[in-house]
Amino acid sequence: MGQDLRTALHVTSVVGLVLAAAMLIPTAVDLGVTGEHWQEFGLSALLTGLFWLLIAMATYGAKTTFTPRFGIILVNMLWWGITVSVIAPLVLGPAQLSIAAAIFETASGFTTTGSTVLTGLDHLDSGTLVWRSLLQWFGGTGILSLGLIVLPFLNVGGLQLFRLESSDRSEKVLPRAAAIIRAIVVIYVGLTAACALGYRLTGMSPFDAINHAMTTLSTGGFSTHDSSMGFFPNSATLWVGSVFMALAGLPFTLFVALFLSRKNLKLDPQVVWFFAIIAGAVALLLVARDGATSPTPRSLSEDVFNVISILTTTGYAAGDYTAWGSLSGPLFFTLTFFGGCAGSTAGGLKIYRLIVLAKMVNVSLKELIHPHGVFPLRYGRERIDPVIFNASLVMSASFAGVLAMSTLVLAAQGNDFVTAVSGALTALANVGPGLGDVIGPASTFQSLPDASLLVLAICMIVGRLEIMVVLALFMRSLWR
Amino acid sequence: MGQDLRTALHVTSVVGLVLAAAMLIPTAVDLGVTGEHWQEFGLSALLTGLFWLLIAMATYGAKTTFTPRFGIILVNMLWWGITVSVIAPLVLGPAQLSIAAAIFETASGFTTTGSTVLTGLDHLDSGTLVWRSLLQWFGGTGILSLGLIVLPFLNVGGLQLFRLESSDRSEKVLPRAAAIIRAIVVIYVGLTAACALGYRLTGMSPFDAINHAMTTLSTGGFSTHDSSMGFFPNSATLWVGSVFMALAGLPFTLFVALFLSRKNLKLDPQVVWFFAIIAGAVALLLVARDGATSPTPRSLSEDVFNVISILTTTGYAAGDYTAWGSLSGPLFFTLTFFGGCAGSTAGGLKIYRLIVLAKMVNVSLKELIHPHGVFPLRYGRERIDPVIFNASLVMSASFAGVLAMSTLVLAAQGNDFVTAVSGALTALANVGPGLGDVIGPASTFQSLPDASLLVLAICMIVGRLEIMVVLALFMRSLWR
Repeated sequence: MGQDLRTALHVTSVVGLVLAAAMLIPTAVDLGVTGEHWQEFGLSALLTGLFWLLIAMATYGAKTTFTPRFGIILVNMLWWGITVSVIAPLVLGPAQLSIAAAIFETASGFTTTGSTVLTGLDHLDSGTLVWRSLLQWFGGTGILSLGLIVLPFLNVGGLQLFRLESSDRSEKVLPRAAAIIRAIVVIYVGLTAACALGYRLTGMSPFDAINHAMTTLSTGGFSTHDSSMGFFPNSATLWVGSVFMALAGLPFTLFVALFLSRKNLKLDPQVVWFFAIIAGAVALLLVARDGATSPTPRSLSEDVFNVISILTTTGYAAGDYTAWGSLSGPLFFTLTFFGGCAGSTAGGLKIYRLIVLAKMVNVSLKELIHPHGVFPLRYGRERIDPVIFNASLVMSASFAGVLAMSTLVLAAQGNDFVTAVSGALTALANVGPGLGDVIGPASTFQSLPDASLLVLAICMIVGRLEIMVVLALFMRSLWR
Repeated sequence: MGQDLRTALHVTSVVGLVLAAAMLIPTAVDLGVTGEHWQEFGLSALLTGLFWLLIAMATYGAKTTFTPRFGIILVNMLWWGITVSVIAPLVLGPAQLSIAAAIFETASGFTTTGSTVLTGLDHLDSGTLVWRSLLQWFGGTGILSLGLIVLPFLNVGGLQLFRLESSDRSEKVLPRAAAIIRAIVVIYVGLTAACALGYRLTGMSPFDAINHAMTTLSTGGFSTHDSSMGFFPNSATLWVGSVFMALAGLPFTLFVALFLSRKNLKLDPQVVWFFAIIAGAVALLLVARDGATSPTPRSLSEDVFNVISILTTTGYAAGDYTAWGSLSGPLFFTLTFFGGCAGSTAGGLKIYRLIVLAKMVNVSLKELIHPHGVFPLRYGRERIDPVIFNASLVMSASFAGVLAMSTLVLAAQGNDFVTAVSGALTALANVGPGLGDVIGPASTFQSLPDASLLVLAICMIVGRLEIMVVLALFMRSLWR
């Protein structure tokens, strides 16, 4: 128990040191552009670095075996600890946020949610902008490692389906993990570079291209402009964004398996449904938005872009899509639940869970008609252990329960119904924009009270860790 | 297959004839009060009676065994067939509704939902008012028979938990059913009479007392006044209503078991939670509504009354409870999901399903921490087959899926977000009032387009039949 905590703290301190070092990037950027605020970013790096260095030294030599208990403690320590400890650039730096607002913005970055309390992004200093993008970019690698290595090992919400190997013996996990993390980093960096190049070629400035590439690949959605991607007049920019968001919403296992040249690559049903849902939603939106008139090239690019942005839980906006007919609000609200594929940086329930739910309903109906029949559960062509299916269903139910409770808390804090429910949902699903006048895609979270910002920050991390990993903290048996 | 359909049609025709005969009650009431519209009600009785008499004769002698397939067909035939065939009093009678509006109002009555398209209830003719109450009262007996006899036999959504006997051999079902239905009718009539007496003693007119007693015991919620129960100034009226709605929200198995003097009565956990949820919601509402000021006797009675009204899916309103602070809307929205106890006339997900969900989450978390541990599922003190728990979870997931699809359809028809989502929910859960300016407790469904009324009528029946029984119609294996 004690060793579990110490080891988790040690691993977290290494990540904390990496992020402290990363604060030197906004320092350098500021020096290169205006030179007005580099001391503040430098001081942030120093303070954060010292804090984690002390902890790293205090926990040096801690060692433990990789048990489920350790996995749960480690993952919680990483997301809660890092979020709270790296707020300095937003508090001490030129953004000068309050502690609550900085925790909100940092959680939104690190969980790749993309909601923001900042306005006037177009005139904000480059250091702050690049720090927000870096938070999402690092958060993206974090969640990929989590989703591909730790969570499947824990069978959280049915993620066992997506283990890269069938063995679950703990002594093999850590060395394999190193190879996978290496592959993730190489692929992630490569895709980010390709995306930045794509954006640049469609007319973005180099600074905007790099920032948006980082927040595209992490399905984060922070932008350097108040009007988000709607700022860029070239429709080709939206198409580049659509392609790379879609790539980022696919299971990273695909890319990793290609990279490590595994031969046994199977077509994952969630990939098929991912594209089917995009096609269906765009079709609905075409009818809802354009009705009788035919779509223009620009409106079509916006439709596709916004659907992919919400489905992959990126959360960029190109135009106020919630104002496109009465269907668009509920349509985007529904897409917010869905999320991308398991094993990607996307949040939400994830598409394979929807497939699993549909399969279970189908089998239930067959059993209703033929109570003595036996109907195996399948995912793709494989027969799946019902335990894995159940875990999916239970996670979805927990999601609904946490959503209801968060909505009630936000409402009790004085937020209106649409703000409360869409705010809780967009945070839990790590999407970004909510619905309505207060937190819709045409607005920001700036007007919310500090207490609501903290509730939403908690929701983001709870959602990012697939609910169950956080709920496990409340089980007595974890602490025995 | 053919025999299943014919037999189901024959049983339905008997119920149809009973309802045709029941149309003689508004005929008689109208004769006794104004005498202006008795011919229209009489004509409705005649036409409806003739229609079902022909079908009864055509299907005479049909016989089948009680299989799951027959159960599914029978239940669908009863609710869809009766709803569509008994609209005459609202179309031909003084209410003069359009076909769509009459189907909506009849579905709302027969499913004990309680949403209405009528305004000016205070000046409406007595015949129409009593017919609406009768629809709910008959709908209440229908759902009790369904919930206590047919659905548990089918294991719909985990209702197998609530079988009165452990045997499921089909040859024993029908004779037992007769005894249970007799018990249900006697208890139901007795409670209705007691409720009417209670209302009368608190100052209601005899007519109002009888009408409201019928719509209280069926947790239906139709009123004879536009301001619903807010019309009655005596707080004692609200307390009487609260008591009888709560009784109606309890499992009828309790009363039936007492009546048939079964000895093996166990305390059902859902009953405990039923009262705990009422207490919790009232406490939240006291804070949300009255804040720093202390509640008056009237406001306390309204708080308790509205919470029980929504939780039991009755849907009476005493005051515009959605205007009581920002928490009240989301609170009542959440309560709308819950519903009363299984085996009652209440709709919604039902409290035992929430208990089951919570248990499954708890066991999942234990398994997360101890992957090789074995943690049995219990309901109360009994160990329960996981199959039953799964069925609950699957039904809840289907509920969410149907809710999402209905919301999208309503939004596509031009309804705003809050109207679409709360309208779909209140219909599926058989509650009555929605949220917002259009269909909130201070308003009616009158302003919705016909197409939306039909969608909502379908939702009411789908919800009333616990979703799965209707979805089963779409399975090829049912029709083979």
